[in-house]
Amino acid sequence: MKEDLETINKFQKEIILLGQTSALLDWDLQTYMPKQAAQSRAEQSALVSSLIHEKMTNETFFQAVKNLKKEKLDRKNEVLVKKIYKELTKSRTLPKEFVEELSKTTSLAFNTWLEAREKDNFKIFQPHLEKVIALKQKEANYLNSFLQCKNSYDALLDNYEEGMTVEKLKPLLEELKQGLIKILTKIKNSEHYKTQKEILLKKKFPRETQIEFATDVFRRIGLPENGSRIDFAEHPFETRLGINDVRITTNIRDDPLFSFTSTIHESGHALYELHLAEKSRYDFLESSPSYGMHESQSRFWELMIGKSKPFWEFYFPLFSKKFNLKGNLDDWYNEINMVKPSLIRIESDEIHYCLHIILRFELEQGLLDGSIQVKDLPQLWNEKMKTYLNIVPKTDKEGVLQDVHWSGGSIGYFPTYAIGTVYASQLYTAIKKIMPTIEKDIEKGDFSKIREWLKNNLHVHGALFLADDLIKNATGQGSNPKIFLKYLNDKYKEIYGF
Amino acid sequence: MKEDLETINKFQKEIILLGQTSALLDWDLQTYMPKQAAQSRAEQSALVSSLIHEKMTNETFFQAVKNLKKEKLDRKNEVLVKKIYKELTKSRTLPKEFVEELSKTTSLAFNTWLEAREKDNFKIFQPHLEKVIALKQKEANYLNSFLQCKNSYDALLDNYEEGMTVEKLKPLLEELKQGLIKILTKIKNSEHYKTQKEILLKKKFPRETQIEFATDVFRRIGLPENGSRIDFAEHPFETRLGINDVRITTNIRDDPLFSFTSTIHESGHALYELHLAEKSRYDFLESSPSYGMHESQSRFWELMIGKSKPFWEFYFPLFSKKFNLKGNLDDWYNEINMVKPSLIRIESDEIHYCLHIILRFELEQGLLDGSIQVKDLPQLWNEKMKTYLNIVPKTDKEGVLQDVHWSGGSIGYFPTYAIGTVYASQLYTAIKKIMPTIEKDIEKGDFSKIREWLKNNLHVHGALFLADDLIKNATGQGSNPKIFLKYLNDKYKEIYGF
Repeated sequence: MKEDLETINKFQKEIILLGQTSALLDWDLQTYMPKQAAQSRAEQSALVSSLIHEKMTNETFFQAVKNLKKEKLDRKNEVLVKKIYKELTKSRTLPKEFVEELSKTTSLAFNTWLEAREKDNFKIFQPHLEKVIALKQKEANYLNSFLQCKNSYDALLDNYEEGMTVEKLKPLLEELKQGLIKILTKIKNSEHYKTQKEILLKKKFPRETQIEFATDVFRRIGLPENGSRIDFAEHPFETRLGINDVRITTNIRDDPLFSFTSTIHESGHALYELHLAEKSRYDFLESSPSYGMHESQSRFWELMIGKSKPFWEFYFPLFSKKFNLKGNLDDWYNEINMVKPSLIRIESDEIHYCLHIILRFELEQGLLDGSIQVKDLPQLWNEKMKTYLNIVPKTDKEGVLQDVHWSGGSIGYFPTYAIGTVYASQLYTAIKKIMPTIEKDIEKGDFSKIREWLKNNLHVHGALFLADDLIKNATGQGSNPKIFLKYLNDKYKEIYGF
Repeated sequence: MKEDLETINKFQKEIILLGQTSALLDWDLQTYMPKQAAQSRAEQSALVSSLIHEKMTNETFFQAVKNLKKEKLDRKNEVLVKKIYKELTKSRTLPKEFVEELSKTTSLAFNTWLEAREKDNFKIFQPHLEKVIALKQKEANYLNSFLQCKNSYDALLDNYEEGMTVEKLKPLLEELKQGLIKILTKIKNSEHYKTQKEILLKKKFPRETQIEFATDVFRRIGLPENGSRIDFAEHPFETRLGINDVRITTNIRDDPLFSFTSTIHESGHALYELHLAEKSRYDFLESSPSYGMHESQSRFWELMIGKSKPFWEFYFPLFSKKFNLKGNLDDWYNEINMVKPSLIRIESDEIHYCLHIILRFELEQGLLDGSIQVKDLPQLWNEKMKTYLNIVPKTDKEGVLQDVHWSGGSIGYFPTYAIGTVYASQLYTAIKKIMPTIEKDIEKGDFSKIREWLKNNLHVHGALFLADDLIKNATGQGSNPKIFLKYLNDKYKEIYGF
């Protein structure tokens, strides 16, 4: 048994180290790499990926895992072995030719998606998306031969949100949808809604000062100078390159709050990753149990903290001074929380956001079970936009073509955004209950207690529990949209006076 | 044969790609990595190195090379196969335990060297250096079982300067030493020498402007924005991370010309690497034939161009304006070429520099053949300093402890600096002969013709020829210290009026 444990530890460590190397290749690609080096970088990344794949499919590794499955292990190793067994079996269940075909198809689909979006023409993308969907149906079947899920969508969901099923997800999102629409109705009927205007955020904020604030909030959330970085990239992202090495990127855009808000979001991811790696064990449990769990960390900081009144009690005076803002904290707070339907998911306010997700979930589930045809997507998209958000995209570019996910074969990914947001509100509600005076800390820009709580209640456990169990252990309940709806209702009732 | 060629191409490509990945890990370590991530990075680098080693010692690779050695190949493949065969055989000649011992010993020696230098105490370093030397003697013996060199030092020299031997090197350096001392005597007897003073370089140059000039000269030498970068690091270095991806670093120090001069030096290396990779063949011939050849490129730009009058005809007016300098071009030119013995090699002027190298060569040769004991090094060092440079270090820190090389086991490396400098002067002399009006271009800051000439006459050939043959093909002669001495004599005669 000792030998088998050593074997799996060796393989895990090598796979993790190669994964970090691969992450560095990607970080550099997106931050500093000279443009014309793209071809070289693609070859380097492909080679490192193939080395990871070799190790993941190595017979000695698999045999050691199978041996250990039969042994009596302590709780941690039992969970670990089960997790590795599942991951290895899943990769072994997919034939090599299938994986290659999927990779080629999605790579081509991504390029045609770019083109289709550029030319605002869904027809260009359609045949490629059809191929992707057909392959994902096939993938779900392959995986299900091992996973034995009730629903083929579950087999894909398992890649992102282990433990989640359509059976649990559908009522959760349905309840969310009804609740959000109800709150939106109240908001839209309010006097404040009818007269609301963007004033403060119409200003142009100087680039240098934006960078200063982004760096400030990154450090204040708890990312240490010796163990983290913030750089520039076209798109904001977070990545862990090693122990004490988490990095995020930001960008300065027209929206004067974009860099600040995206930095808070990525800082949430980064703090999680910093703590996950802290034990330096180099095993597969040093990771988040699910995408939703990970997203809960970024959404928590971005929304529950970063769009809260106490947070701006601290930052507004600084913003006001540096950006020479007229108006008071309430004006500012109301404006940054302005509810207004948007065609674009990532520009959405926190109430409309999950409606965007629900729309996508419904469509992709239909695509997978064959009840929806790819060719009908644009029309169905627009119909759902009309029903849920009461606005309709004029073009596919601002409709069905806006997200990259499907082109890459990420079916089952979207729901994790909603799950994460719900989790985030549950964490915030729990923290406020446990630490009734925490808002006083936030008003001083002091997040140390929150940071410690998240670390001790979530982060240190890594992937030892399923996401929903982890949330339950920490807050007393598994995913519960009612808590999110109550959080929203309380917050927006104050703003819109309904 | 086709199959064997495919095999060696596959292995070379993978080894090169992994080498570039390893170079990125190192570049990041020295530029942007958070400090506390050092442990992670060491583990990542060690893993990638071990993967490279695995491929280098792979049996299939070696068998394919051996098969090809028996075949009738075209000139390029013949040289390539010979080169690979030599490299693989050399690594196979060293027992695994020996390589590990050397690696551990030098790693420890490096740390104690740091400590010894810090505490200015050679005794701390001495036992470690003794071990390193003993291992290098052993290494030379191992290598010689295959290389069959006349002199055991040659076997180590072969790692850096293929084709060079003690038999050729000794008279070359001896001629150089005599010639340099002769020029120095003339300089020291001149009126100008006795009254020379640092005035312009005593100024503090603002950091931002220094960076501007460094970037400007980097681009002007010919490093394109889309295919190269300049960043900051503790020590300046150059690295190739892929096709169209060469990077250098610089640093701002007290010496106001440090960043500008070191940037010119590293740009020379970078231009070479940029051109070496241009054909995207991913084979071992896409490299420099020797360290001396590589150094010739950096020294050429740093000294023959960067310390020339025409170069400063272009840059002095800009410097003068931006740094608000008093004094004229001649004052400036004389000052940056001021001859003055220095205890420190890397702070040396271009005349004293090679004397530092010769001193080190003589000592390390003695260490290797046993005629010099490590314990006697400080005293011998100081004696040679007195004889060749007429100054004596007060402490070991500014004497025998100043260079990192020996702690890492780099015996046979130092001479390549002198070889490179001699080559550089030969290139400059040839270029001036072939393009008699080239100084007019330099005066305009236009280096395009020089760049093209270097590319077409040296760079494109990669490692197809030995360094000395390459220089001979390009300039008409192999290494010839007389040309360097004439270059120096002409230049300093004008400055010092002897």
